[in-house]
Amino acid sequence: MSRCAFVNGRYVQHADAAVHVEDRGYQFADGVYEVIAVHQGGLVDEEPHMVRLARSLRELRMDWPMSERALGVVMREVIRRNHVSTGIVYVQITRGSAPRDHKFPKHATPALVVTARRGKAPDPRLLEDGVKIITVDDIRWKRRDIKSTSLLPNCLAKQQAYDAGAVEAWLVDEDGLVTEGTSTNAWIITQDGELITRPATHDILNGITRLALIRLAREEGLSLTERPFTVEEAKRAREAFYSSTTGPVMPVTEIDETVIGNGKPGTFVTKLYAVYQDFMAGAPKVEELPALKAAAE
Amino acid sequence: MSRCAFVNGRYVQHADAAVHVEDRGYQFADGVYEVIAVHQGGLVDEEPHMVRLARSLRELRMDWPMSERALGVVMREVIRRNHVSTGIVYVQITRGSAPRDHKFPKHATPALVVTARRGKAPDPRLLEDGVKIITVDDIRWKRRDIKSTSLLPNCLAKQQAYDAGAVEAWLVDEDGLVTEGTSTNAWIITQDGELITRPATHDILNGITRLALIRLAREEGLSLTERPFTVEEAKRAREAFYSSTTGPVMPVTEIDETVIGNGKPGTFVTKLYAVYQDFMAGAPKVEELPALKAAAE
Repeated sequence: MSRCAFVNGRYVQHADAAVHVEDRGYQFADGVYEVIAVHQGGLVDEEPHMVRLARSLRELRMDWPMSERALGVVMREVIRRNHVSTGIVYVQITRGSAPRDHKFPKHATPALVVTARRGKAPDPRLLEDGVKIITVDDIRWKRRDIKSTSLLPNCLAKQQAYDAGAVEAWLVDEDGLVTEGTSTNAWIITQDGELITRPATHDILNGITRLALIRLAREEGLSLTERPFTVEEAKRAREAFYSSTTGPVMPVTEIDETVIGNGKPGTFVTKLYAVYQDFMAGAPKVEELPALKAAAE
Repeated sequence: MSRCAFVNGRYVQHADAAVHVEDRGYQFADGVYEVIAVHQGGLVDEEPHMVRLARSLRELRMDWPMSERALGVVMREVIRRNHVSTGIVYVQITRGSAPRDHKFPKHATPALVVTARRGKAPDPRLLEDGVKIITVDDIRWKRRDIKSTSLLPNCLAKQQAYDAGAVEAWLVDEDGLVTEGTSTNAWIITQDGELITRPATHDILNGITRLALIRLAREEGLSLTERPFTVEEAKRAREAFYSSTTGPVMPVTEIDETVIGNGKPGTFVTKLYAVYQDFMAGAPKVEELPALKAAAE
């Protein structure tokens, strides 16, 4: 069974899913994207993803390629056609194709690509053992709050992690403070049992899983503070983990070869993982088309 | 007469020139490029462009999609097929297509796109009157020496310039020092007649026209220092200009609404423009295939 994608108005075979070489996404990274989890037939946190997409577009003064409601229909159709029950749907919007020129084109139609693929739940061993990460300098641009495709430094840092036998890199700003991971948000739990994650400014992407975990942690009565933390503080932490759409909660048991806590995933991260699993299980089924609000904001 | 492009091994109609949606250039800005001027049938500074391309690829651990010599042949064929006598040839290389994952794919073939288009010489009025620029914060990533397609902040700043009735923005670092333009290198001439441009570190792209001008200025016996300069120093300068492949030497007569010198292009920039015109006129004809050295380095 062959995969399919939606590209600029048409459902096409995945192998044929192509964009023009003068699409500004290709020549300038002039585009934004979202990755939304599909979990056992449910679409996880669709609305906050659409709210963030609307914000990214607005910050870059890009137009929607179609109404938000129509995009919701297309995402569902791509998920359905690819028989994705658990996995992700990927949405990318660029400023469109135009003769190469840095300034915005006067007449370009935003380009839209939607793909979906099946995924598997995280390897249970990672959740039992935790993962190793490294820290590297954060050399990215200063508008990380915009979910743009300008991801080259993220790719370089992720590869650096793999080269070091780790699976993620936490990025560190000029002040020695952790910003976030290359594709994840960074969290620690202090020895006093306080949950810490960096506040959502221009320095980090405001992860949708991050937002859900903040809400869920508060509902669980956990003590949570949004503030930056240093690498040294992370190494002394009781527990550490990172969050992402595909993760979604991944215990970190080693940072730059320093063992965190007792070297095993702790009670906080195990609890948060379980709570988030419950939350995902309650996601509205893909068939349901919600009343979205983002575009109206 | 329809335009053509070279895409991943084939010469295709420009309208059909497409890359896969999972090309890492599209999803991650994981690619590099060069723009080389074609001037009256000559290919300007091909070798230093190829040396820089080799360096960009090496820094990102990307492979050449074909030998450098073969790329030289393809560029010439694209120029010939598009009947470009004066204009540019554009070369983009990405890490290739692979299922979306930040880390480098194990098996991906580098993608290659080559296009060419006719251009015109700069509007003579701009050279007579000079242009207006603005200054904006440099929010780009910290490896601007790599000529990557991670150009979103450059596009945003260029658009900001146009919105302000200017044609270029000079980017300013945390210390108030000019780094470079959004697609150009920045130069001033002090009241003492000293030519100043920022040294080529990771902070700027080492422009090929910049390098040629440094050499030509020295041959002309001009006093030249490579050092950073502040916005204030630029505003007090005797003359200011920027350089680029397509420019190639553009007098700046207004910075943030401060008039530079007497508000007209001065003797230095006029001289450098003339010297560079002579240099371009001597460029080897497109038909000649030089013995290139970059790949061997």
